[in-house]
Amino acid sequence: MTVTDLARDAATDPDTSDLRSRILTIAERLFRDMGYRKTTVADIAAALRMSPGNVYRFFPSKKALNEAVAERLLAQIEAELGRIVSESCSPARERLRRFLRTTHAMSAGQFTANRRMHDMVEVAMAESWEVIHGHIDRVEELLVVLVTEGVRSGEFRAVDPRAAARCVQTAIVRFCHPALIAQCADREQPTIDEMTDFLLTGLGTG
Amino acid sequence: MTVTDLARDAATDPDTSDLRSRILTIAERLFRDMGYRKTTVADIAAALRMSPGNVYRFFPSKKALNEAVAERLLAQIEAELGRIVSESCSPARERLRRFLRTTHAMSAGQFTANRRMHDMVEVAMAESWEVIHGHIDRVEELLVVLVTEGVRSGEFRAVDPRAAARCVQTAIVRFCHPALIAQCADREQPTIDEMTDFLLTGLGTG
Repeated sequence: MTVTDLARDAATDPDTSDLRSRILTIAERLFRDMGYRKTTVADIAAALRMSPGNVYRFFPSKKALNEAVAERLLAQIEAELGRIVSESCSPARERLRRFLRTTHAMSAGQFTANRRMHDMVEVAMAESWEVIHGHIDRVEELLVVLVTEGVRSGEFRAVDPRAAARCVQTAIVRFCHPALIAQCADREQPTIDEMTDFLLTGLGTG
Repeated sequence: MTVTDLARDAATDPDTSDLRSRILTIAERLFRDMGYRKTTVADIAAALRMSPGNVYRFFPSKKALNEAVAERLLAQIEAELGRIVSESCSPARERLRRFLRTTHAMSAGQFTANRRMHDMVEVAMAESWEVIHGHIDRVEELLVVLVTEGVRSGEFRAVDPRAAARCVQTAIVRFCHPALIAQCADREQPTIDEMTDFLLTGLGTG
């Protein structure tokens, strides 16, 4: 689907929550294609064939747009992680492995694979910590559920689930923080799987 | 000792390696007091009562000065970590605990406690990756020695010392990367000690 197709849909659909989401889709696409700093609200409005005032009605500033785009990208990661945690018939160890691998792959894919996304991420890191902290908190909650289930099933030793979840989350920051993924790109080891093995040993029952 | 005292010493000492080190001491002091971006080579030369040309004789650019200052600060951390590793009469577990605590405390103290150091660190992170990678490599070597000794003494299980050292080093990046120390300042947990306990369990013999 091209930007023009998306814009046509947005222009013909009167539903506001849908319109809000289409503005975000176009904004994300333009941030990805042109870079955050080069994209203006006028560009977004033009792609949607509406007036900038109409965009401002939903997003009073470019910062608000950046935050909403970032939140949506992070929500996609959270949704996928939530799905993994909820597969309660799989062993907790295996779910943790997929959880960490997915966190890394999706963070790298969304925030560092496309160099033009770097300036959006940089601005979000500088201006919108609440959005990022909210995401970190939600990922922590998911990890707490997973560790709790692993302790209950006897796969993990009797750790405090929250304390252990926080250690695991902190230990893999190099694999999900966009700046670190980029900075560590030429340091190949450990991979996320090697790191996961190491962390699983820490959680293990021996 | 004030900047003026240091400058007087530098001006009266003819030994060039000593002069090089005094230029660095003054440069570091000015970076710390005024910020890296606001400090000019002319400021450094003036504080040393010498011509800018004399500073350029040792450091052909401000980048070269930044790298030399960063290298010296990182060398201080490495020296302290080296001392801890070499205390081979202490148990490896206890040395690892002090090693990680010291890495965190010195990184925080040198690079994030003083807000004016942030721009020097930012420029080093953007322009001088070789210096930082060199430091990471040297810290890795120290950790390999420590883990090897812990495996040999039976304190740690029979891990591959280099693979385990890399996992430990990666797991604590949040505690030594200047940008992350600053970004995580209001996330109190885990502390470096809690993280160390978790990592020691991963290394432990059960």
